[in-house]
Amino acid sequence: MDLWLIGIGTGNPEHVTLEAQRALREAAVILVPRKGPDKSDLAGLRHRIIRDAGAEGQIVEFDYPTRDPAIPYKQRVRAWHDEIARRWTAALSDVAPAGAVALLVWGDPSLYDSTLRIASRLSPAPAIKVVPGITALQALTAAHGLTFNTLAGAVTVTTGRRLREHGWPERTETLIVMLDGECSFQTLGRDDLHIWWGAYLGMPEQILDHGPLAEAAPRIIETRAAARAAHGWIMDTYLLRPKGLE
Amino acid sequence: MDLWLIGIGTGNPEHVTLEAQRALREAAVILVPRKGPDKSDLAGLRHRIIRDAGAEGQIVEFDYPTRDPAIPYKQRVRAWHDEIARRWTAALSDVAPAGAVALLVWGDPSLYDSTLRIASRLSPAPAIKVVPGITALQALTAAHGLTFNTLAGAVTVTTGRRLREHGWPERTETLIVMLDGECSFQTLGRDDLHIWWGAYLGMPEQILDHGPLAEAAPRIIETRAAARAAHGWIMDTYLLRPKGLE
Repeated sequence: MDLWLIGIGTGNPEHVTLEAQRALREAAVILVPRKGPDKSDLAGLRHRIIRDAGAEGQIVEFDYPTRDPAIPYKQRVRAWHDEIARRWTAALSDVAPAGAVALLVWGDPSLYDSTLRIASRLSPAPAIKVVPGITALQALTAAHGLTFNTLAGAVTVTTGRRLREHGWPERTETLIVMLDGECSFQTLGRDDLHIWWGAYLGMPEQILDHGPLAEAAPRIIETRAAARAAHGWIMDTYLLRPKGLE
Repeated sequence: MDLWLIGIGTGNPEHVTLEAQRALREAAVILVPRKGPDKSDLAGLRHRIIRDAGAEGQIVEFDYPTRDPAIPYKQRVRAWHDEIARRWTAALSDVAPAGAVALLVWGDPSLYDSTLRIASRLSPAPAIKVVPGITALQALTAAHGLTFNTLAGAVTVTTGRRLREHGWPERTETLIVMLDGECSFQTLGRDDLHIWWGAYLGMPEQILDHGPLAEAAPRIIETRAAARAAHGWIMDTYLLRPKGLE
């Protein structure tokens, strides 16, 4: 089986590349979740992107399983990936695709996304093609008109959990934090940092804030909680850098 | 002045997003270097992307200055940025744009690119809009069908120079190296690493290699030298990760 993982960007239908549009047009089957695992209803956006690309392949839907909170984190994630791979196989066995199967991936298939790990569980192993897409990191830096790295400097991309456990990584000028449900920037205890924060990046609901961390942190915590309550879900990310670096 | 920095991806004309195409169509003026600073002649690709987008703005060309190798690195880069900003101003003063000025940026304007730093030197300060594009990092991971990060792991993005000076960063599972003209992966002295390497990513000339670092390193050094001699230039990047991490 040919399996194409197609990055579609972060919620702006114009993030889609010409390569992604072509892949969607050439796919025999497009595998679409009935509802995303992030609790946001992004199905409408997926169907708009498929339509705008002029895709005529068969749409096959599957349901995401739920995760069992009683299992420890990494084991729980692996069990969840196993179950999704089983559901893909079951959904596809009903249609016996005559050509490539496409999956739309939020952002880019490489970045804090499970699709490649799930695909590696399929048997027989599919021939995988990845079409890169605009990531939340790029949507964040673009929205703020900000550089990812300082001049010849290093960047660390990490998670909220790791930031809480290990603090600021050695010899990094820039830190980008993903998957942080707990505003872990509060735990750093440094007064020389600036923060550039964004939620719902690329979407009409996009919210941005930036400033010295000490001043911006309470604002962001409040804005984030209010937005999450209003929408029922939130996706956000942020970049931290000491003041004065260019 | 409205200045739009438009990421165009890494050499595959299909990396261009719908947002980038629209910005090119809406720009009054498109500022294009006569020849890129990377010694590769990418002018043909830029003009193809402009044409494919249906852009009808005025094309204004400028020449990149050369860098003075007698000046220390960071100072040299800053002097070069100052001079490019002067040349943009001079080129635009001849045409007095009646709308937005667009600049095509290789990859994404945030990532190891000078355009935002040069734009910050303009006076009066322009209103900057950034359109994100596919980066070399994504072209690398997509070409190899590889994840950027391990499960909930951290990633460091750094330069060849910093890798030689500081070695493997603490608590990073994945290291991505950019701007490395010296195959600095040779200096690591670890036998547990895998490397995924790519040159001319996204272009018809794309070359890939991967494997255990100890076996792949001599191959990559040889391939890189031969390709650089054949094309007259090379752009490459690579990802390193200990074996067995997923």
